[in-house]
Amino acid sequence: MAPPLEGSSDALWPDFPQGPLSACRARASFSYKELQLFLEGEDILRFKKTIYSALERDPLFAHSSSEADLSLEKYRELTFLRCKRIFEHGFFSIKDMWQNPLRVLALIHCLGMYDWSLSTKCLLHLLVFASSVFSSGSERHLKYIEKIYNMEMFGCFALTELSHGSNTKAMRTTAHYDPATEEFIIHSPDFEAAKCWVGNMGKTATHAVVFAQLYTPGGQCHGLHPFLVQIRDLKTLLPMPGVMVGDMGKKLGQNGLDNGFALFHQVRIPRQNLLNRTGDVTPEGTYITPFKDVRQRLGASLGSLSMGRICIIGISAVNLKLAVSIALRFSAARCQFGPTDDEEIPVLEYPLQQWRLLPYLAATYALDHFSKLLFMDVIGLQHDLLKGDRSARQAELGREIHALASAGKPLASWIAQQGIQECREACGGHGYLAMNRLGELRNDNDPNCTYEGDNNVLLQQTSNYLLGLLERRLQEGARFSSPLKTVDFLEAYPAVLSEKFMGSSVPNWLDPAAPLAAYKWLVCYLLRESHQRFSQEKRSGGSDFEARNNSQVYCCRSLALAFVELSVVQRFQEHTHGPGVPPSLRAVLGRLSALYALWSLNQHTALLYRGGYISGEQAGREMEKAILALCAQLKDDAVALVDVIAPPDFILDSPIGRADGELYKNLWTAILQQSGVLERAAWWQEFTANKPTVSKLPQLQ
Amino acid sequence: MAPPLEGSSDALWPDFPQGPLSACRARASFSYKELQLFLEGEDILRFKKTIYSALERDPLFAHSSSEADLSLEKYRELTFLRCKRIFEHGFFSIKDMWQNPLRVLALIHCLGMYDWSLSTKCLLHLLVFASSVFSSGSERHLKYIEKIYNMEMFGCFALTELSHGSNTKAMRTTAHYDPATEEFIIHSPDFEAAKCWVGNMGKTATHAVVFAQLYTPGGQCHGLHPFLVQIRDLKTLLPMPGVMVGDMGKKLGQNGLDNGFALFHQVRIPRQNLLNRTGDVTPEGTYITPFKDVRQRLGASLGSLSMGRICIIGISAVNLKLAVSIALRFSAARCQFGPTDDEEIPVLEYPLQQWRLLPYLAATYALDHFSKLLFMDVIGLQHDLLKGDRSARQAELGREIHALASAGKPLASWIAQQGIQECREACGGHGYLAMNRLGELRNDNDPNCTYEGDNNVLLQQTSNYLLGLLERRLQEGARFSSPLKTVDFLEAYPAVLSEKFMGSSVPNWLDPAAPLAAYKWLVCYLLRESHQRFSQEKRSGGSDFEARNNSQVYCCRSLALAFVELSVVQRFQEHTHGPGVPPSLRAVLGRLSALYALWSLNQHTALLYRGGYISGEQAGREMEKAILALCAQLKDDAVALVDVIAPPDFILDSPIGRADGELYKNLWTAILQQSGVLERAAWWQEFTANKPTVSKLPQLQ
Repeated sequence: MAPPLEGSSDALWPDFPQGPLSACRARASFSYKELQLFLEGEDILRFKKTIYSALERDPLFAHSSSEADLSLEKYRELTFLRCKRIFEHGFFSIKDMWQNPLRVLALIHCLGMYDWSLSTKCLLHLLVFASSVFSSGSERHLKYIEKIYNMEMFGCFALTELSHGSNTKAMRTTAHYDPATEEFIIHSPDFEAAKCWVGNMGKTATHAVVFAQLYTPGGQCHGLHPFLVQIRDLKTLLPMPGVMVGDMGKKLGQNGLDNGFALFHQVRIPRQNLLNRTGDVTPEGTYITPFKDVRQRLGASLGSLSMGRICIIGISAVNLKLAVSIALRFSAARCQFGPTDDEEIPVLEYPLQQWRLLPYLAATYALDHFSKLLFMDVIGLQHDLLKGDRSARQAELGREIHALASAGKPLASWIAQQGIQECREACGGHGYLAMNRLGELRNDNDPNCTYEGDNNVLLQQTSNYLLGLLERRLQEGARFSSPLKTVDFLEAYPAVLSEKFMGSSVPNWLDPAAPLAAYKWLVCYLLRESHQRFSQEKRSGGSDFEARNNSQVYCCRSLALAFVELSVVQRFQEHTHGPGVPPSLRAVLGRLSALYALWSLNQHTALLYRGGYISGEQAGREMEKAILALCAQLKDDAVALVDVIAPPDFILDSPIGRADGELYKNLWTAILQQSGVLERAAWWQEFTANKPTVSKLPQLQ
Repeated sequence: MAPPLEGSSDALWPDFPQGPLSACRARASFSYKELQLFLEGEDILRFKKTIYSALERDPLFAHSSSEADLSLEKYRELTFLRCKRIFEHGFFSIKDMWQNPLRVLALIHCLGMYDWSLSTKCLLHLLVFASSVFSSGSERHLKYIEKIYNMEMFGCFALTELSHGSNTKAMRTTAHYDPATEEFIIHSPDFEAAKCWVGNMGKTATHAVVFAQLYTPGGQCHGLHPFLVQIRDLKTLLPMPGVMVGDMGKKLGQNGLDNGFALFHQVRIPRQNLLNRTGDVTPEGTYITPFKDVRQRLGASLGSLSMGRICIIGISAVNLKLAVSIALRFSAARCQFGPTDDEEIPVLEYPLQQWRLLPYLAATYALDHFSKLLFMDVIGLQHDLLKGDRSARQAELGREIHALASAGKPLASWIAQQGIQECREACGGHGYLAMNRLGELRNDNDPNCTYEGDNNVLLQQTSNYLLGLLERRLQEGARFSSPLKTVDFLEAYPAVLSEKFMGSSVPNWLDPAAPLAAYKWLVCYLLRESHQRFSQEKRSGGSDFEARNNSQVYCCRSLALAFVELSVVQRFQEHTHGPGVPPSLRAVLGRLSALYALWSLNQHTALLYRGGYISGEQAGREMEKAILALCAQLKDDAVALVDVIAPPDFILDSPIGRADGELYKNLWTAILQQSGVLERAAWWQEFTANKPTVSKLPQLQ
């Protein structure tokens, strides 16, 4: 039975308790409930509520004061048990993957808000492992589906090796086909080729999708292919013959997840375990593939690469939601200094604190929206591909989404990492207490900068895409045009480059057209700079490899970031200024959109000046004033904007970030509820009984 | 017996083993031994060697694979035992504080390189607690000195309260004097006034220097004063009557250190326990002070505030040393991609990787030098004060050092925090493995941004100092002049503001005078901007409080940072270009100095353009090219520059950062040496025996 929208304690929107934040809430310009409904829709809100309530009611998910001090082994056990419980709840349905994919995204996010180790553990098995079996495999692999969903087998995805991550072509694990037994022999030539960092492999996985170089009899190598390899016994969890599998050990975060390594010593698997969508081997040992060349075969997997990166954009936005919720509620409740010695004011009243936090709040909304749109784009792409659409438009769409995802992931994960750090510092010492959760968020978000492709390396995919379009334009006269229209503005690029902007007043900058136009100019400018630098390097005798390497810093890298920032700004602006926005929400959404756009653009002011897009002192000054004006306008809406994105207190799990704003009461309670908090140390005798024998007692002067 | 300089295995400079880094070392333009001797001097090098060797030989300091998984209780016990052992070694001597204070600094740094929890624990007792007893107390407190150094008592410094940190005036703990018993009554009015975050208080301290509002009979309040309060029994470590003392719980880092809280319920202490240097109470209850007013009394403690902040500058530089050592050795050994599919090159060969890391290497050298100079400045100041020098010059010097320390601490702690994060990411997934230590460094460095004053709040001290000088100049015609001459250039500020710089070629920017001149212009510009903004706010009716708050972002905050950056740049440049520099070191030091200066300045390019100091595309482009040229020139020296600053492998304790560069062997060994690494989980039956009962088995489409 669906909970009522409002009123009862089980409602979607129970009332917040009266307290220090009530006054802020009363000052908000809009209803947080209305905004939540507008952004999420009732179905997703109800689904999230169901998940949150299930976790809160279940003692297995109870928080305890000893949680912070769990051993690695215990934390992994707990995470595994919770993962099983999530399966039992049946929150995940394959049907949703097709009919309502945003519910799957919501599930990942809800679990992640509770604990990323748990979310990642489920996600790696149910989505990454399962989908790679089905999307890389064929009908013969459908038999695994039930075993996966009832956890008879538990899976992981093994690509990275000890000495190779980004350069997948250099992976050295081999799979030699033996026609005599119709088996593949999986083998690691040495420890540097050990598969490593594989989530779920450390303690729990029974099966791995292992990427290995496929060799047919005669010694021909057909490149990297995925194989389904059993690594542990299904009953005993002991390793299979020839498999040396173990745990990587403690990581900076996400320690509930068991990342592992594996070395394969001549491990034999049936021929059928090759996941054969893009290439197969006949029983006799002949390699067959529907693709003409290796590049095309690799290109077919761009969609699934994009999916992982797009998920990370959403995950980063979730981390920002949690961090800014904690820091802004803290800032609205914490008073420090004031106009007189007797009167202290909330730190959120200080323009400096607003400027530190509110842009990250705006970025949270903008990135969240961007990740959802892009997620639906990639889902659409995959649906059409599975329906057999192999049109040129589909290929073009795949490349465009890939370019957006490859720069969107770095942008979002970096903003989240910086934003969480700013939130930590904005909460002062109390932000440094583990129970307030900002450290966990920082540590759990951190790998987003690395996995699914190192951020700096990934950005090259995007700049290569843009430079490729320019090259086609210059060489073949091809139009700048893409299915999602993110590059169409480049068609006018020589004209755009001669544009100038006065920006001599705050209203100039607050015009929604202003940051968009500036970003378009900026992307054109960086595209030209990158192209020129690359061409110069080539002319002075460099290889393509050298020329590309020498044009990354200050050129291609900045180009990729500016391009995706423009897309985020544009999509969020369209969303917040669209006809479907309820009138009562327009003002606040417009401000969020403007703040994200200008704050983000402001990082590039040096280039705007350098390229002559703006000039004179006034332009830069007024842009800064516009940012500060938006912060001042948004600060009274800040707590309500947090109420829209924050999960219930049980999930947020941060004494200083609770919805009632009773900062000190909640913190003091939580401190005193820690076990043994007032007891002397068990080792007190070390202090009193064994005084140090000082070899050289220090002398007074 | 001092170890020989070179040759034997016990020498100051044993040879590095041959390996993947040998080639890089052979390419270096200088001898790392010569640079180390030039920067540190033989005495300090030998002292450090003694400390490192003592730790490495002692099983109490042995690293173990279970270390990463220690419980809070065990880690604190171990840290306490190690702290005692450090006392027994007698590395610390009070004599050094006077005769060779750089040795004391070296001790803190060596211990911190091993583990900041240990270093902080020693430092808080030996320096912060002990010095505050002696520098705030008087002859009657000298009796404590032996008890402190033989650990009969163990101390902590209790200022911060649950609801107040930055605003010290608002502290609410009280100390009422009772002439009947000649006692003070220490009292916490409620839990929001609980002393908290006090290092050593959680489990080990027997005594605290407690800051409380002093009241004399009749109810007059004389402001915050320090009192020596016994909080635990010396034999049993049980709390003293009326004291509720406990542990704050897990923090983001430094968990070997026990931060605690205390609530005082009418705790009586003898009158003599008032630390009475700046104010005393007679037995009858009359307050007496040598200072005329409260401001002057507070001003007298500026020196000790500066000391804490200056120590943090050095600590941040140490953290950078560790992080860049790990990341650069990794980058010189890790190969990924290359000009052909068959040939991979070290990632340090990529300009992008150089640009990510080498500026932080340069910043490490610059900040390390700055912190040492400033440390000697403040030591000199304190010596002269203790000798009774109360001249106007001394007061002026105190203010200048305070201004440098208050912006230097934010600058250094932020660069370290960002630099460690960059190093973590630059090491990819392996940087995310706890054993490689970059997470620990990030977590342990983090509080440097908060304690001894929140970074953003502290910056106001520096901008207030500069604006105060400007005000005196405008009102009274006072000259810009200070004992260390850091502000003297402002005397020419109207002329400076009309300067312009062509910067139309790389050599233009590589001229050592270029970044200095640009920084001087920048400080003048930001001083004018800040003053104008403040004045505008005042004219439009704002109070001083409002005007100050509204001129922080983009003005005063930037001013403070630019000012201290200029000082760091200038001091490092003087050091690296001075006549005492051996000829063979001039090239590399000059490049480090130029790289730090230009990289740092580059963050302000927007302002250089906006204010017309530079113009046209060429200037910005050539500045970027100069930075990249310096990176390219320094990359072959990078490993040798790391050898100068990295501690021995045992202390650095990072498999990917070991001096031999055998990245994968070291990492693989360390992974396999973890206890139980290949064993199945103890809870394996949970996997095999209790399969989830899926309430709604997902359906195929």
